[in-house]
Amino acid sequence: MTAEGASLDLRGQGIGLPAKELIEQLQARAAGLSEALVEDRRRFHALAELGWRERNTTDAIVERLAALGFSVTSGREFLKDAPLLGIDPGAERPQTGCAAELDSGRPGPTVCLRVDIDALPITEAPAPHRPSADGWASAMPGVMHACGHDGHVAIGLGIASLLSPLVRANGAGRLRLLFQPAEEGVRGGRALVDAGWVRDVDLLLGFHIGFGVPAGTVAVGVRGFLATEKLRVRLQGRAAHAGKAPERGRNALLGACQIALGLHALAQSSAPGLRVNVGRLQAGRALNVIAEEAELLVELRAERSDDLRDLSQRARRLVEGVASAGELGHSVELIGEAAEWSNPVALARWAGVVATATGAFDHVLSDHVFGASEDATLLARAVAERGGLAGYLLLGAKLSADHHTPQFDFDEEVLPRGVLLLAAMAAAALLQSG
Amino acid sequence: MTAEGASLDLRGQGIGLPAKELIEQLQARAAGLSEALVEDRRRFHALAELGWRERNTTDAIVERLAALGFSVTSGREFLKDAPLLGIDPGAERPQTGCAAELDSGRPGPTVCLRVDIDALPITEAPAPHRPSADGWASAMPGVMHACGHDGHVAIGLGIASLLSPLVRANGAGRLRLLFQPAEEGVRGGRALVDAGWVRDVDLLLGFHIGFGVPAGTVAVGVRGFLATEKLRVRLQGRAAHAGKAPERGRNALLGACQIALGLHALAQSSAPGLRVNVGRLQAGRALNVIAEEAELLVELRAERSDDLRDLSQRARRLVEGVASAGELGHSVELIGEAAEWSNPVALARWAGVVATATGAFDHVLSDHVFGASEDATLLARAVAERGGLAGYLLLGAKLSADHHTPQFDFDEEVLPRGVLLLAAMAAAALLQSG
Amino acid sequence: MTAEGASLDLRGQGIGLPAKELIEQLQARAAGLSEALVEDRRRFHALAELGWRERNTTDAIVERLAALGFSVTSGREFLKDAPLLGIDPGAERPQTGCAAELDSGRPGPTVCLRVDIDALPITEAPAPHRPSADGWASAMPGVMHACGHDGHVAIGLGIASLLSPLVRANGAGRLRLLFQPAEEGVRGGRALVDAGWVRDVDLLLGFHIGFGVPAGTVAVGVRGFLATEKLRVRLQGRAAHAGKAPERGRNALLGACQIALGLHALAQSSAPGLRVNVGRLQAGRALNVIAEEAELLVELRAERSDDLRDLSQRARRLVEGVASAGELGHSVELIGEAAEWSNPVALARWAGVVATATGAFDHVLSDHVFGASEDATLLARAVAERGGLAGYLLLGAKLSADHHTPQFDFDEEVLPRGVLLLAAMAAAALLQSG
Amino acid sequence: MTAEGASLDLRGQGIGLPAKELIEQLQARAAGLSEALVEDRRRFHALAELGWRERNTTDAIVERLAALGFSVTSGREFLKDAPLLGIDPGAERPQTGCAAELDSGRPGPTVCLRVDIDALPITEAPAPHRPSADGWASAMPGVMHACGHDGHVAIGLGIASLLSPLVRANGAGRLRLLFQPAEEGVRGGRALVDAGWVRDVDLLLGFHIGFGVPAGTVAVGVRGFLATEKLRVRLQGRAAHAGKAPERGRNALLGACQIALGLHALAQSSAPGLRVNVGRLQAGRALNVIAEEAELLVELRAERSDDLRDLSQRARRLVEGVASAGELGHSVELIGEAAEWSNPVALARWAGVVATATGAFDHVLSDHVFGASEDATLLARAVAERGGLAGYLLLGAKLSADHHTPQFDFDEEVLPRGVLLLAAMAAAALLQSG
Repeated sequence: MTAEGASLDLRGQGIGLPAKELIEQLQARAAGLSEALVEDRRRFHALAELGWRERNTTDAIVERLAALGFSVTSGREFLKDAPLLGIDPGAERPQTGCAAELDSGRPGPTVCLRVDIDALPITEAPAPHRPSADGWASAMPGVMHACGHDGHVAIGLGIASLLSPLVRANGAGRLRLLFQPAEEGVRGGRALVDAGWVRDVDLLLGFHIGFGVPAGTVAVGVRGFLATEKLRVRLQGRAAHAGKAPERGRNALLGACQIALGLHALAQSSAPGLRVNVGRLQAGRALNVIAEEAELLVELRAERSDDLRDLSQRARRLVEGVASAGELGHSVELIGEAAEWSNPVALARWAGVVATATGAFDHVLSDHVFGASEDATLLARAVAERGGLAGYLLLGAKLSADHHTPQFDFDEEVLPRGVLLLAAMAAAALLQSG
Repeated sequence: MTAEGASLDLRGQGIGLPAKELIEQLQARAAGLSEALVEDRRRFHALAELGWRERNTTDAIVERLAALGFSVTSGREFLKDAPLLGIDPGAERPQTGCAAELDSGRPGPTVCLRVDIDALPITEAPAPHRPSADGWASAMPGVMHACGHDGHVAIGLGIASLLSPLVRANGAGRLRLLFQPAEEGVRGGRALVDAGWVRDVDLLLGFHIGFGVPAGTVAVGVRGFLATEKLRVRLQGRAAHAGKAPERGRNALLGACQIALGLHALAQSSAPGLRVNVGRLQAGRALNVIAEEAELLVELRAERSDDLRDLSQRARRLVEGVASAGELGHSVELIGEAAEWSNPVALARWAGVVATATGAFDHVLSDHVFGASEDATLLARAVAERGGLAGYLLLGAKLSADHHTPQFDFDEEVLPRGVLLLAAMAAAALLQSG
Repeated sequence: MTAEGASLDLRGQGIGLPAKELIEQLQARAAGLSEALVEDRRRFHALAELGWRERNTTDAIVERLAALGFSVTSGREFLKDAPLLGIDPGAERPQTGCAAELDSGRPGPTVCLRVDIDALPITEAPAPHRPSADGWASAMPGVMHACGHDGHVAIGLGIASLLSPLVRANGAGRLRLLFQPAEEGVRGGRALVDAGWVRDVDLLLGFHIGFGVPAGTVAVGVRGFLATEKLRVRLQGRAAHAGKAPERGRNALLGACQIALGLHALAQSSAPGLRVNVGRLQAGRALNVIAEEAELLVELRAERSDDLRDLSQRARRLVEGVASAGELGHSVELIGEAAEWSNPVALARWAGVVATATGAFDHVLSDHVFGASEDATLLARAVAERGGLAGYLLLGAKLSADHHTPQFDFDEEVLPRGVLLLAAMAAAALLQSG
Repeated sequence: MTAEGASLDLRGQGIGLPAKELIEQLQARAAGLSEALVEDRRRFHALAELGWRERNTTDAIVERLAALGFSVTSGREFLKDAPLLGIDPGAERPQTGCAAELDSGRPGPTVCLRVDIDALPITEAPAPHRPSADGWASAMPGVMHACGHDGHVAIGLGIASLLSPLVRANGAGRLRLLFQPAEEGVRGGRALVDAGWVRDVDLLLGFHIGFGVPAGTVAVGVRGFLATEKLRVRLQGRAAHAGKAPERGRNALLGACQIALGLHALAQSSAPGLRVNVGRLQAGRALNVIAEEAELLVELRAERSDDLRDLSQRARRLVEGVASAGELGHSVELIGEAAEWSNPVALARWAGVVATATGAFDHVLSDHVFGASEDATLLARAVAERGGLAGYLLLGAKLSADHHTPQFDFDEEVLPRGVLLLAAMAAAALLQSG
């Protein structure tokens, strides 16, 4: 870690480390939040709600942020008319998640923190699994925070609490917190971009706890986020009596089979990480009826967004052609999306310097492959395309079991560390003259 | 209709028309039952229960038959250990349907009447649909007697009531009534055969009301029952992360697609009426997992049982081969079955003579194509293979709408006609010396 | 055979039997031709040439007809610019077959006889196979008259010779002989129609020897000609190195496979005789190259032309859709075609009367199912659509082996019988006032 | 290049650089061969023969080697009974290629040079293409040395000529030259191994000219040889008339289509470089016959031999299963094979030292990815498995066009360079005490 990394160029303006006294102030406040962070994490753990259904979670977040003096946008206004991935156009529109903003009233950058809030369709393990043993396990049957987003919410609220008085007193610019619904399945990110929430962002920070990074370590040079599209393909055929007049039917089931086989032949490529999977196929109802309807859930992946775009075009063309071949109606709906991403080197370096200077983390990983998909990448890409900076940090934590398993739990020791690091990064940008 | 038809050769014994006085007695008793028949039909209409779940229906039937002095076999004893088509071996074993027997104590033929008792997964139409308007519509949400089996039960009980005193007084031989569960989907018939209920039958009578035959007419020369097999194919693969290690998976979804395409290519044949339909396919769960399981529902049909057997062998071999090709476990379960059938000419002719002599029906159809499948054919074939006689009659009725529609209803005028004809045929065999 | 059949209504004009003296004259002339017919048959047998390549055969026919005073159209003029099925548009245009006309100069009907002249790609059997043993086997390696078209040519020339002086002397109307190339594969018929050769025909006669009809018998009530289309489907993809950049290829081989599987699923139908067969598939060249080209030969069949049209539309749409799905260029070329056909009852009856009256045949079959395809049906349909009459007769013959086998031969005794019957039918129309 | 590389451990014995005088002697002799090498190269260029048909080429080689005093094994004795990839067991057995051995009579290592001799099915470009312009183009229509094996033969003979007197005079051990047929398609290598020609080899040297390495440079640290299997899959079905009795057929064409689609779905893998390609598919003959036979040519590739083995097992199981599914006979024949390979680091380093010390090449590439398949790898693997050393060098050359194109030619300046380097390496092992 050299002095070189101690300053970050944010749209031409150098952002240094926070002043020594500010660092001390942040350290003290973060330490003081420790108990509240644990309490929050456990409260949201029990509230576990699936993506696009985070109603109680959102209500609780909104209440807290409003109390902290943030200007909060939620409900119908939050995502406006942005398409919601995975939600049928005809279905009732979810109204979860929120944006909270604290404007210093003084000119300065817009610093944005993205926090994901949804849980998973997993039944939490019984005791001795700690949340169950200690009485704060999920109260929602079949739904569980098995990825750590409960901790993310706690960190997000902690940062809000920590920075609120500081920004108000000495800030220059704006602090925005985005509590995103439906990260699982990479569904919610797209809507935040489409609703315009990152259009004016100068510095975007995303984060995840755990993810293979050991406790006490923060990964700053994170790369290898995989580009992905999740598609729902629907075919509409025509029913007919399979015995008496099969020729009158238009067989959606056979069309779906041809599509599945055809899609799996598209994945051979020199492009790295290219993958196709038809994960689910459901077609037809009755034994003696030519199947009228079929649905396929398709996942496309690539290491590079360009390769994904090419693959997606081929896949869509395949669906269209096979549907036409079988005289079937068809639709292809994007139900999840994430982009390729690597943290900019300068930002990574600077984050490492901040982590060290604040003592938030003991070790810094400067090169780490993510190897999965995250829809924060859509926000990051949108920010980068307009000249802003974006970064996604992995906050190392001790885990009781793998993410997405019924036994998942994490050591809450990571919470004040995460609050300190992210708050210090934001403070460096917003309280420069402080 | 010539005098030639007035006698039937039943295992070498000639069976003539009932004597004039007996006919008059039967006519009078049948007429006297009219109101009770309507009441029964409506009661069972309201009770509507799906195949293999006809618990209340069975209880009501058993109670009545016991009261009439029949020896009734029901519950676990009825179908013994016979495999039940469509029921998973591991699942709880249904115990519906029953057999009722009245033994005259005197040597003579075994005459058997087969009555099917199940309803359909159809929501009954509201008023002005007559059952709804008059208050005897199905009390079971989503289940409805839309095929007329409620009428069949009424006819069966009517015949029991009509013949009970006569057989007891003057009969020679045995009267057996088989109340079969799960005719829809051609599931229940196989078990009646396997449990031995027709092994010793000399004369088997089956029947259906409506089915395109006009009111006042009985079709006796019925042919063109289609042989069919309904199969449930299951594939067991191996899950794997579709992005990280697809080669570790064994893809049940792709296997199912190959089977579906392969099966549909088997139907080209010079054999009449050969058909293959994969009516339903369900495979996989999650977008990013190689599908571990798949299930196909397959219907095979042919006009001739031999052709069906060949087709079934090819289909099973196809499944086995494709499963092996993809290193998938597989099972093929027979979940429905019916055989080719045509009523014997002599029996048809004799039935026509009886219908005319008793005045049960005004018109007789001597050649009528059934054109669908019925698992009474399995019983009929079993009887014929052991030298007995079997016939299946269509009792013409005025219908309000097609079978298997929410508006289906029939004119109950057919009930006493059916009772009279079938009771007279049974009486001719059992009360010969009467 | 009643007197009722002794007259035929040809566009409102009654055509009776030839007068007794004329019949006697025809009988004498036909008998006198017997040896010449055998000689001709054997000469053409040795000349055996494949469809669209019948150059020597055509030359020999043209020479004979010209000598008999017919006006002959051959070479480029014969089929004008009509598309030739099975011939690539870019390839050299075949110029085989011919039309020969004898115009009486007096007003009257146009009577047309259609004669097919091509052989098959079969290697003729060695002795004791009669042609080989007697020295008149095919002189063309790998090509053989194994269907009897050599006999057809002999009969056609015999009729020309027999009728020429009669028509010239007493005829009213025109006699036209069409020597059609490429009947095998049902290729040549379409071009004769397109070139206009049957547009003005009042009575069209086609015929085949053998075909399951016994010697001495003529089948007049022939029905069950199957409608068929033969298609050549070509796919054009893009080559790419299969190891280094498979994603750059567009795989014509996989497209062809999807089409083959898809087509075979189209044949399930309640339409009688519907069939699909992909008889040949050739795709790709090198092991390590994504296949750039593919070709499928497809046969569609149905008993009814309407059903065939529907099937053809679905098949073409399937090809188009699958090609589009794989981003492949495609073409579908009709390379063979025949129509549904049944002889009109009146014509069949009249032909039977003529056969009997002339003694040409001893027995008459009034109902016979053809059960295969013949492109004479295209001519017949074209004639019927314009109000003319058309019929196709099967001239019974003793065969040494099945048609299309290396051992095929027929008893030449059928030749003078055929000449007599067909000449008499033509004479009845053309020499009415004779 | 350090002194460290100046000695090679060959089965425990250190092999140093040739002595200075020997190097000078080799340099002089190699220079003296220059013209003869060009002459040889052009002679063999004109002789161009396809793999397994290199009769004239072999005769010329045998003659020369015998004249040089080598003990030559050719004809039936060369490959004994080893299976020959790509040759049908029933077909005539090719007898091309040869082994030549020179035994010093003194104990010492067996040093083996592998030389491939076959040409390609490519029509050589006309002038101004140099071989055509200068009159030594291929004399075999449609066959051309477009890969440089003509140069390989010249180098091999040059080494034989150069080393023959030296080994005879002062050698210790044995020099073996293997002139391998059918390298293209990686067919011949397997047989050399199976016939035992490398069983006792201590040092094996293979080489190729050009291949992207610039003139004057030798690549010694060559890695990334791809493992591959080329398979010929044959299916045997049963013909049947597609219209009259399709159900009697067993459709090899549809089976082939299912296999092609199934194979292409096997390539998704985390294993590097895994590829499947069905490069050619031919099935069926006649339009109206259910296809009786089908053949697929399949290429499997992987960077690692283990992954290839797994893929090959899955592919073979797929073929077997689909064949069984369609009641088809099947065979899978290995028609080409190559292994994963990387030159051992020590050997590469030593080769670089020799190249520099002898001045054979001006530059040395110590890390170069081959990225294609070569069946010399089978020999190399066999040698390595028994504790010997094997290496494959790329002799840089200026090319007129890419390998495997009609315009391919190379600057013969590489020939004496190659002779010098390889002879020096062999001499270092065989003339150690010299």
